[in-house]
Amino acid sequence: MTLYMIGIGLSSPEDITYKGLQAVEKADFVYLENYTSMLQCKVSDLETFYNKKILLADRNFVEKKADEILEKAIHKNVAFLVVGDVFGATTHTDLYLRAINKGLGVSVINNASIINAVGIVGLELYKFGKTTSLPYPEQSFKPQTAYDAIKTNQQANLHTLILLDIKPDRKMTVNEAINILLDIEEERKEKVFTKNKMIIGCARIGGNFNIKYGRASDLKKEDFGNPLHCLIVPGKLHFIEEEMLELWTIKKKVIKIKNNHKK
Amino acid sequence: MTLYMIGIGLSSPEDITYKGLQAVEKADFVYLENYTSMLQCKVSDLETFYNKKILLADRNFVEKKADEILEKAIHKNVAFLVVGDVFGATTHTDLYLRAINKGLGVSVINNASIINAVGIVGLELYKFGKTTSLPYPEQSFKPQTAYDAIKTNQQANLHTLILLDIKPDRKMTVNEAINILLDIEEERKEKVFTKNKMIIGCARIGGNFNIKYGRASDLKKEDFGNPLHCLIVPGKLHFIEEEMLELWTIKKKVIKIKNNHKK
Repeated sequence: MTLYMIGIGLSSPEDITYKGLQAVEKADFVYLENYTSMLQCKVSDLETFYNKKILLADRNFVEKKADEILEKAIHKNVAFLVVGDVFGATTHTDLYLRAINKGLGVSVINNASIINAVGIVGLELYKFGKTTSLPYPEQSFKPQTAYDAIKTNQQANLHTLILLDIKPDRKMTVNEAINILLDIEEERKEKVFTKNKMIIGCARIGGNFNIKYGRASDLKKEDFGNPLHCLIVPGKLHFIEEEMLELWTIKKKVIKIKNNHKK
Repeated sequence: MTLYMIGIGLSSPEDITYKGLQAVEKADFVYLENYTSMLQCKVSDLETFYNKKILLADRNFVEKKADEILEKAIHKNVAFLVVGDVFGATTHTDLYLRAINKGLGVSVINNASIINAVGIVGLELYKFGKTTSLPYPEQSFKPQTAYDAIKTNQQANLHTLILLDIKPDRKMTVNEAINILLDIEEERKEKVFTKNKMIIGCARIGGNFNIKYGRASDLKKEDFGNPLHCLIVPGKLHFIEEEMLELWTIKKKVIKIKNNHKK
């Protein structure tokens, strides 16, 4: 039968395409890959919407037990759901490759991913350089790859999209990300990500989004609400891009000083 | 009422999301932006699927007469359909901005675009540099921006996605694109896009796709079928990427030499 690899978009059950929904309805087994990204709804909401039981596939499952999925797809229709679009992670590419090499029928059904949905901030998608990700620093692992990516893109006047770490128990906020990047700046001092850098903080892109534009030191005090968050460091701005960014510019609190001076 | 800006994906009417379809059903007017990209189906197929009359909005319309759309959205529900995702072109950003500034309700409904759907070739999306486009050269306008983008991305080991020109009467093929880039190479001689360069030709990504990987001089003899086509110049390859590219590698014709030598 067929392995349907289906992107289900970024936010709610209704983000699946009509084609994707038809495939889910045909499926004997429905897996949801739930470690490289997360929806802005519950798995039970998906189950209710599809009227199907969903099997959760974590990293270990997809990497080690992909055979189970492939075995099932020999005689049954299997839907493998991915938050965002299908090929956001190399493990999915690997699953596709193994299915094809096994001679299985594979159908890919695309959807939005953060990489294109982020266009709503108003920056031209063609002017983004390499996308990067920012992990939580650990005692023995404090990668600076995000900092390097911003630097390289900046030198070429390009924008940088920074995807933030997702752990089972916590999702990185814009605020945490800014602090991590400022710490790296503190160490490197290459003026790549300074307190005064104008950046864009985003939450829940593709759904009930919240976008704010301002200085790093101001944005890190803002509340972006529920995950997922991401961060954008703009490169050189075109005037339409500037106009769009005005929509999200945080209003500086005007400090009113009581005029006690008697006239 | 509301202006619904809806990405309708890359290929067939069923690529619209369930959320998008609900919005189209609510709409009193349905516009289709039909100049920055094209679907792999007819407008009449969309009309049949939605059971709605579609108003075509060409470049001139969207840029000059956006007011008509915005005026209508004051008292009616208006759907503005975009092939791929919503913010692929600055004119759409401009429409969004004008709607927000007019105080209209605006709802953005995302979908796949070539920028993420291209992940099916097996190259990591995070390792793409700046996206570029290749126009048909004209007597007085022979831009080399695509060549420059490939060069810059290559120096950073990044992949380059090259979107090919769409004119009302013709859509650039992979074959034409290769010839144009080889002509630029001939002039520049910077070994950025040579005959032996291993590249990926793609057609109808997101639908009934055709992907081929091989030397530029071999790929330019291949038939990719109907539009849309695009071209990818890979940067440095990871082994999973290499494995995926083997799926699309064109088979060299083995020239059989008759053995007339008598033993």
